[in-house]
Amino acid sequence: MATTEGALVASYSRGMKLLEAGGGARARVLRRGLTQNPMLVYRDAAAAERACATARASLERWQKLVATTTRHGALRRVEASVIGRRLVLQLTFTTGDAIGINMAARAAELVSADLERRTKAEARFVHGEDVEKRANARAQLEGRGRSCVADATIPRAALAKLARTTPEKLVAILDSYRVGFAELGTQNWLVQAANGLAAVFLACGQDLAYVGECATGQLDFALDARGDLYASVHLPALLVGTVGGGSGQGTAAECLALMGCLGEGRGDHFAEVLAATVLAGDLSLMAAFTSHEFVGAHERLGRNRPAGRPEGEIRPRRKLRP
Amino acid sequence: MATTEGALVASYSRGMKLLEAGGGARARVLRRGLTQNPMLVYRDAAAAERACATARASLERWQKLVATTTRHGALRRVEASVIGRRLVLQLTFTTGDAIGINMAARAAELVSADLERRTKAEARFVHGEDVEKRANARAQLEGRGRSCVADATIPRAALAKLARTTPEKLVAILDSYRVGFAELGTQNWLVQAANGLAAVFLACGQDLAYVGECATGQLDFALDARGDLYASVHLPALLVGTVGGGSGQGTAAECLALMGCLGEGRGDHFAEVLAATVLAGDLSLMAAFTSHEFVGAHERLGRNRPAGRPEGEIRPRRKLRP
Amino acid sequence: MATTEGALVASYSRGMKLLEAGGGARARVLRRGLTQNPMLVYRDAAAAERACATARASLERWQKLVATTTRHGALRRVEASVIGRRLVLQLTFTTGDAIGINMAARAAELVSADLERRTKAEARFVHGEDVEKRANARAQLEGRGRSCVADATIPRAALAKLARTTPEKLVAILDSYRVGFAELGTQNWLVQAANGLAAVFLACGQDLAYVGECATGQLDFALDARGDLYASVHLPALLVGTVGGGSGQGTAAECLALMGCLGEGRGDHFAEVLAATVLAGDLSLMAAFTSHEFVGAHERLGRNRPAGRPEGEIRPRRKLRP
Amino acid sequence: MATTEGALVASYSRGMKLLEAGGGARARVLRRGLTQNPMLVYRDAAAAERACATARASLERWQKLVATTTRHGALRRVEASVIGRRLVLQLTFTTGDAIGINMAARAAELVSADLERRTKAEARFVHGEDVEKRANARAQLEGRGRSCVADATIPRAALAKLARTTPEKLVAILDSYRVGFAELGTQNWLVQAANGLAAVFLACGQDLAYVGECATGQLDFALDARGDLYASVHLPALLVGTVGGGSGQGTAAECLALMGCLGEGRGDHFAEVLAATVLAGDLSLMAAFTSHEFVGAHERLGRNRPAGRPEGEIRPRRKLRP
Repeated sequence: MATTEGALVASYSRGMKLLEAGGGARARVLRRGLTQNPMLVYRDAAAAERACATARASLERWQKLVATTTRHGALRRVEASVIGRRLVLQLTFTTGDAIGINMAARAAELVSADLERRTKAEARFVHGEDVEKRANARAQLEGRGRSCVADATIPRAALAKLARTTPEKLVAILDSYRVGFAELGTQNWLVQAANGLAAVFLACGQDLAYVGECATGQLDFALDARGDLYASVHLPALLVGTVGGGSGQGTAAECLALMGCLGEGRGDHFAEVLAATVLAGDLSLMAAFTSHEFVGAHERLGRNRPAGRPEGEIRPRRKLRP
Repeated sequence: MATTEGALVASYSRGMKLLEAGGGARARVLRRGLTQNPMLVYRDAAAAERACATARASLERWQKLVATTTRHGALRRVEASVIGRRLVLQLTFTTGDAIGINMAARAAELVSADLERRTKAEARFVHGEDVEKRANARAQLEGRGRSCVADATIPRAALAKLARTTPEKLVAILDSYRVGFAELGTQNWLVQAANGLAAVFLACGQDLAYVGECATGQLDFALDARGDLYASVHLPALLVGTVGGGSGQGTAAECLALMGCLGEGRGDHFAEVLAATVLAGDLSLMAAFTSHEFVGAHERLGRNRPAGRPEGEIRPRRKLRP
Repeated sequence: MATTEGALVASYSRGMKLLEAGGGARARVLRRGLTQNPMLVYRDAAAAERACATARASLERWQKLVATTTRHGALRRVEASVIGRRLVLQLTFTTGDAIGINMAARAAELVSADLERRTKAEARFVHGEDVEKRANARAQLEGRGRSCVADATIPRAALAKLARTTPEKLVAILDSYRVGFAELGTQNWLVQAANGLAAVFLACGQDLAYVGECATGQLDFALDARGDLYASVHLPALLVGTVGGGSGQGTAAECLALMGCLGEGRGDHFAEVLAATVLAGDLSLMAAFTSHEFVGAHERLGRNRPAGRPEGEIRPRRKLRP
Repeated sequence: MATTEGALVASYSRGMKLLEAGGGARARVLRRGLTQNPMLVYRDAAAAERACATARASLERWQKLVATTTRHGALRRVEASVIGRRLVLQLTFTTGDAIGINMAARAAELVSADLERRTKAEARFVHGEDVEKRANARAQLEGRGRSCVADATIPRAALAKLARTTPEKLVAILDSYRVGFAELGTQNWLVQAANGLAAVFLACGQDLAYVGECATGQLDFALDARGDLYASVHLPALLVGTVGGGSGQGTAAECLALMGCLGEGRGDHFAEVLAATVLAGDLSLMAAFTSHEFVGAHERLGRNRPAGRPEGEIRPRRKLRP
């Protein structure tokens, strides 16, 4: 992790100890596929509808077309939908272990230009329904990049010892968080996913602009039959690469190699490491919230704090009458 | 900007030339205030409602309490709302030119603990309605950190010369983008804000986990009475600091100083620089989309591309029958 | 309730019995205020910002202006915000016990026209940020019309006897529903609020087009210290009237009168009845889901079903091998 | 239309005259399919993932199972996704010309119970990801019930004569409305769709609780090459029936018959009539907003207004100093 925030590393480390106490996290990639959604504009809805039918019948043609421009990726799926006189083309690519966005953009350019020619579109925008680098509802439902789940069972005793909390308290705080998230209208139902992802992305040469899109999904806590805590994170849209981009450069390659996440065939593993990391961080931070240790920990471990001299104490210096 | 993406710097540079051609961007901070939303849980809704009344009457008391813990920030506003038996406390702080999150968390801890004691809450979560580091609807409506607007008028001739596009084409593409964003259910109605913010944040020692929260808001293009382009970006939630955090460290301080954004009294200026940067990037990228130069530019300028040897050409190598 | 769906009345009746078993529901109006959000468009953001300052200083002036056009309502609050070169004016009115939308529209017309004249807006749209009759994030955060909460404690024994369920099962199903609602990106975190509201609105001469806006908010279930169920609904935006509109006509007036909800001074009471009704319906339906009686009940009680002759049985007619 | 709002009928009538002036509206159903999303909860994510594979391989089995319970509907598609340890089953049914919700619920009960038995789920909720009767992001992306588009070209002269507006003004107001809707976080990007749908639903025996779900989608205005207005509405989720439910009863059947929308084979036609109606209403209301006739029209045509005696005048009774 690359960060200037001292408490962050401590928080994730503690979360990993919690995971370890339960035998480790289990993480799996559920779905793979980089989407691009070019938009074409037609004379009217009927023309868009005809183009939609053409698009849906063009998978094979476009697979061949895409094969002329890349050896690394492939077009896997074509869907299309009409909104008034506009057509949204939904292209799904496999991109191997690269994030693959440049390849996919190039392929989307070829494919959408081909459709434009054949259907006489009035305008064409290669990134028209632009899902890139933004939290969005489509990614929650369809996934983007790699969709990943990580879960673990944390023994009650470990929660008590390492984090001074209980499964019941963690279930209760998440219950309240969900009420808050519902009111906030967010697609990031995780707690500090953005922190962990940004720190690992920076260390590992990933594109930091994806943090907002990647840090969406859901956290879950439940009390299991034996009184321990079941915890999971669902990350529908992890856009990361173990080849290409910044992944092969300098310390980034070193960091990836250290985790066994460098190069071909390591994309799933890297996504799984990230999901387990997010789980660790959210566990630890929620525990700190339940035990009211969050602010104190920042005082002790935070940046900009000369040892032993917090700017302010947690307890007020003078009493206030109730 | 710190980035491994070659096309990015070129894109923002071109956008800045476009802004310059129109006399530069005008940026202004509209609102300041770091919010924290502790949540308290009560026996029932009636108890939450009573606590809500107590909270609303506690501004002065809490201002004094906050003053005991920080010299840099101040509590400016207290609001509270009831959701069932939960109370969401909405605290707004001024934090000077630091991002101020640690100060605000400490103050929120004191304030919410005081309310807990006085109103006998069953549970209290200092970050309960957790707005931190996530795109959310509340920030769109209320702002968070600094809300900033940047606008500019770009002469038609400059658009033609520098970007091979027209005001009409830019208005039309934004029209289509909005249809797409509406379907996507996103709070980021900008185009590549996340790119520019991440690159400047990294160069200037800002917390990268805020990229997803900061890169929300709206882009606007309009044709003005003289046939030129009016363009603006609205960024409701810029969370940045010119003191504290990573801002004073090494090259970050150098980068901030270079832009006149280092230290006390420079927070607004830094936010305005960021807003103008976002405007430049979105102008340039939308222009590239309208002129169909986006993919080609990535080929020429992108990372991982040995000069003159693109992995694939934009034109397919063999003709396809229509 | 006016409905052609037989199971609906049975469901709400059962829910009311559950509420009764716990001593009845407690409902309260938390906030009142009908909002209107005219939008004005300016030359640029600086002009919009100046108009924003003018608007914020105009409360008294506009209160007098509104007083010239209505005796029933009053302007209570003026807020304004800038998005690029647009100004969103946030006007909050009290409207007594009428829904008051026509009064508020008339007042918003006067107020926004006055601001237009004084600030030389290029365009003005009286309903510009049009919150009317749509589920939206602003209403979740700020409320609209009447914000209402209803809660109750249901004894464990009553749940077992009347609905063959337990507090634990209800807490668990809501937990899963929240995961689903989060993925759905909805502002309606209730279960069948739309059913109950539509049926009462129809019976009581309310405007049915408001059902989608009114049926938003949150449901909450919790296990209390004695092992009973605490349940609440939060309805931030109830737009109803006990005077004006269709409320005084024929059977609508009779229905309102029957509930003590007809005429001046009865608006809060009507909102509270609605909130309690929503609570009853959501309790009953969630119970039916946990006991797997939902589909069977529709078979027995549903419309279009000749007595004793369901179209299909719940159990498949032939066995399938596992 | 059944409504107590006088201005409403006038508004839709005027809109229809506008459509007529351009040769009428063209409406088409783009997609059909009633979805149900049962949720099953497993021991952990691995078990949910295994069940997901089982579900995806069960289409034929479940088609047979559904065929045992209904003659009117059929299971067309099975998809499934994992969120942590939960499985969301996405079942899509054709339901002929009935809304089909009871049939689909019954079928979803059978199918999800079958999966529960085969995969040893810990819990099962037949409506678990409960899309019913709420505005939601899934319906925007996938459609529900019938997805319908209606479009028309309105001559400039007709807009001038019938509505005192221009294509340019309508494009401009929609541009501002979109900025407002973006900030509001709504899925209803139409203007008064809820009004028209509620009035027709009431007249035609439809389930009024669906108004909020049906009144979502997008409105589009554009200036065409000849200077006329292109207008369209996109309604992704129309849940209506021309058989079953309240459609066959009394005046509802008469109203449906009047429009040629009663009985088997008329579902698409009814959806198309509704889409054209929504287009008419949004055209007319937006025109009224641009010509500032909205409030005046309500005064003249509204309910509760003794002829010639508006409660307040639009112009203030006394002058205010600027």
